[in-house]
Amino acid sequence: MTTPISPTNKGLGHFDRDLPASEIAALRWNLLREDLVLPTAVLYRDKLFNNQQWMRRFTDAYNVRLAPHGKTSMSPRLFQLQLEAGAWGITLATAHQVLAAYQHGIRRVLMANQLVGRPNMAVLSRLLRDPQFEFYCLIDSAAGADHLGSFFSAQNQSLNVLIELGVPNGRAGARTDDQLSDVLTALDRNPTLRLCGVEVYEGVLDNEPAIRQFLKHAVAVTRRLLSENRFAQKPILTGAGSAWFDLVAEEFTAANLADTVEIVLRPGCYLTHDAGSYERAHQRMCQTNPIARTLQPGLQTALHLWAYVQSIPEPTRAIIGLGRRDAAFDSGLPIPALHYRPGSGSTETSPAPAHWEVTKLMDQHAYLTIDPADDLRIGDMLAFDICHPCLTFDKWRTIPILDADYNVIDLAQTFF
Amino acid sequence: MTTPISPTNKGLGHFDRDLPASEIAALRWNLLREDLVLPTAVLYRDKLFNNQQWMRRFTDAYNVRLAPHGKTSMSPRLFQLQLEAGAWGITLATAHQVLAAYQHGIRRVLMANQLVGRPNMAVLSRLLRDPQFEFYCLIDSAAGADHLGSFFSAQNQSLNVLIELGVPNGRAGARTDDQLSDVLTALDRNPTLRLCGVEVYEGVLDNEPAIRQFLKHAVAVTRRLLSENRFAQKPILTGAGSAWFDLVAEEFTAANLADTVEIVLRPGCYLTHDAGSYERAHQRMCQTNPIARTLQPGLQTALHLWAYVQSIPEPTRAIIGLGRRDAAFDSGLPIPALHYRPGSGSTETSPAPAHWEVTKLMDQHAYLTIDPADDLRIGDMLAFDICHPCLTFDKWRTIPILDADYNVIDLAQTFF
Repeated sequence: MTTPISPTNKGLGHFDRDLPASEIAALRWNLLREDLVLPTAVLYRDKLFNNQQWMRRFTDAYNVRLAPHGKTSMSPRLFQLQLEAGAWGITLATAHQVLAAYQHGIRRVLMANQLVGRPNMAVLSRLLRDPQFEFYCLIDSAAGADHLGSFFSAQNQSLNVLIELGVPNGRAGARTDDQLSDVLTALDRNPTLRLCGVEVYEGVLDNEPAIRQFLKHAVAVTRRLLSENRFAQKPILTGAGSAWFDLVAEEFTAANLADTVEIVLRPGCYLTHDAGSYERAHQRMCQTNPIARTLQPGLQTALHLWAYVQSIPEPTRAIIGLGRRDAAFDSGLPIPALHYRPGSGSTETSPAPAHWEVTKLMDQHAYLTIDPADDLRIGDMLAFDICHPCLTFDKWRTIPILDADYNVIDLAQTFF
Repeated sequence: MTTPISPTNKGLGHFDRDLPASEIAALRWNLLREDLVLPTAVLYRDKLFNNQQWMRRFTDAYNVRLAPHGKTSMSPRLFQLQLEAGAWGITLATAHQVLAAYQHGIRRVLMANQLVGRPNMAVLSRLLRDPQFEFYCLIDSAAGADHLGSFFSAQNQSLNVLIELGVPNGRAGARTDDQLSDVLTALDRNPTLRLCGVEVYEGVLDNEPAIRQFLKHAVAVTRRLLSENRFAQKPILTGAGSAWFDLVAEEFTAANLADTVEIVLRPGCYLTHDAGSYERAHQRMCQTNPIARTLQPGLQTALHLWAYVQSIPEPTRAIIGLGRRDAAFDSGLPIPALHYRPGSGSTETSPAPAHWEVTKLMDQHAYLTIDPADDLRIGDMLAFDICHPCLTFDKWRTIPILDADYNVIDLAQTFF
């Protein structure tokens, strides 16, 4: 299924009528030639490729599978890149996201979430009529298992489930042995549910010792369920958001379950990376993880927001046409990265001085602190690094993909 | 121009192929009958109507014009409601937003922002070829005026501009008499720019005395420019976000410029209202503004987010399938409003207990604090009030509009 690109979408160049994404490159837009209406979000092909290969080498080294979390981008074009680089499947968070991915060709989905509610189950029931569609979701309670069992047995369909384990004060997931036993008992009375593995999201914890302990617990539970022959197939043991996937790879492979389980990592942000918490996490793992340390260059920020300087009302303040409508702001404000003066004839951008700083983001504006001596003018173009890919992607329906010369060579659509 | 509704959009019921929005009502979805995939955002028709009429009576009482800020919803369906209730035009923030609005029939736009950058000017230049299209944008610097003048004179087009006034440490806008003089001089040398008024955004200030002083300054500048015959037409004097529009109405009408200027207010959030800062602002104005005090009932929250309880892993914690992908979180977290148990056969919802509280919002999940004795179950449906309409609307491409019985009778598309 392809959805034509509407000229109404923001951040694109000029065209008159809906076009397939495949025809956008032929318009030969160039960012520095001012062919795009700003603000815009752009992806850099070469950096996407670097990050994709980095993660392939990382997961290959550990001999684990990759199911990148698709909620980050919700972009089938990027899912395709991830699958081309060997990803085992795509992780998603909601029934809607699974539907959107399926409609764009994704056929193996790990929904790292409970599937709750009749219309949401109905979405999956319809997709599961396709025998090519492989799907897993989570259960963490007897009540949830009974709801699923009742719905899917009425459809004469079986459903693959993973048990989610959780931690006290965390998100979903069975915390205690009693909760786990309740789930197992509910599985016994709902034979339509096929137990296919164990899932954790370690990202609700914030320190390495606690995360390692939680991961060891997941290994122990998996080992126990294996010994009890609880699994309907070679089980999946899965964890890992974008900040701690190195620990998950280390702990899950150190358990020496290799031949009896399929280990699946689910980071989503590595493909674009960022200049905030994920860059800090990356620096940590490049110092401490034996594989990450050897993989150079590391992950690179592959997503920029470009905007115009629209007002310089005070010597130390520039107002930029970029706001909360365009950029994540929950984990750090956008960081000035590049400066370009349109009409200068140059095909090069300059690095933004380190003292330029976004101090406030409103719905449609950013406050940029500058020095009175800086050569910054109204109409100049600035590129910004971002600090949370997920909440940036969902601000954009179409994101141009650029080559190293800032030519638009492709387009990533999103389906939030 | 109509854009068909894709079954890929989130928060809708089941359908197989793209449909015009006008055909959605015929599907006869009902929220309480669980016809919608959750989470979803919904608008309540009766409350939209209440708010629309409230604002009409308010602006009529002051004999001022309304150009609601369309950036809030970016929904042509809602723009249409606003125009039907007598709005003079639609305010917008960016060239992209103006394009999207124009393509959906909007023909009078106040762009409460500088128009900067060649591709952005080109968008407007193309729209201005339509003689039915009336457009105003802001200038606050000589450099900005020169850019606009140079571009539009090369197109043999004139451009309507308002001078934006600003405050120290604020956003854009001329702060000083020198800055204002520079702008006026630039206007003199750019005759293609038609000076049509004066603009302020008082919302960068946070207290009544400072706002009143700023508004008085805008009146004084307008009076001076009137006396100097600076305006190319009966000038527009415009201000007002959603929090302080009562003060703007008071100050601008108190100036007794009535026959010589057109006063235009630009609040955007009144149509859906919220349960956060705008509700607090509304309570203030209902106590202090002589017109607002008489208009009962006041503004009502017309937008809810509905989601399922997906896990209750601890006696005091429920995990809800609603996150930063669905709701604004920059001005307060979503507030539980209604509770409904599917399958109960009831056609009524219950108010959420006051002690239910969202304490954390992740990308796709909310943490809800409950009491162990509460009758809350996995699969229950909850409605949440929101605290910032703008950053909630931009999470949704289609928003069902419901009647009082929770039937989907219409659909608002958004074009962010």
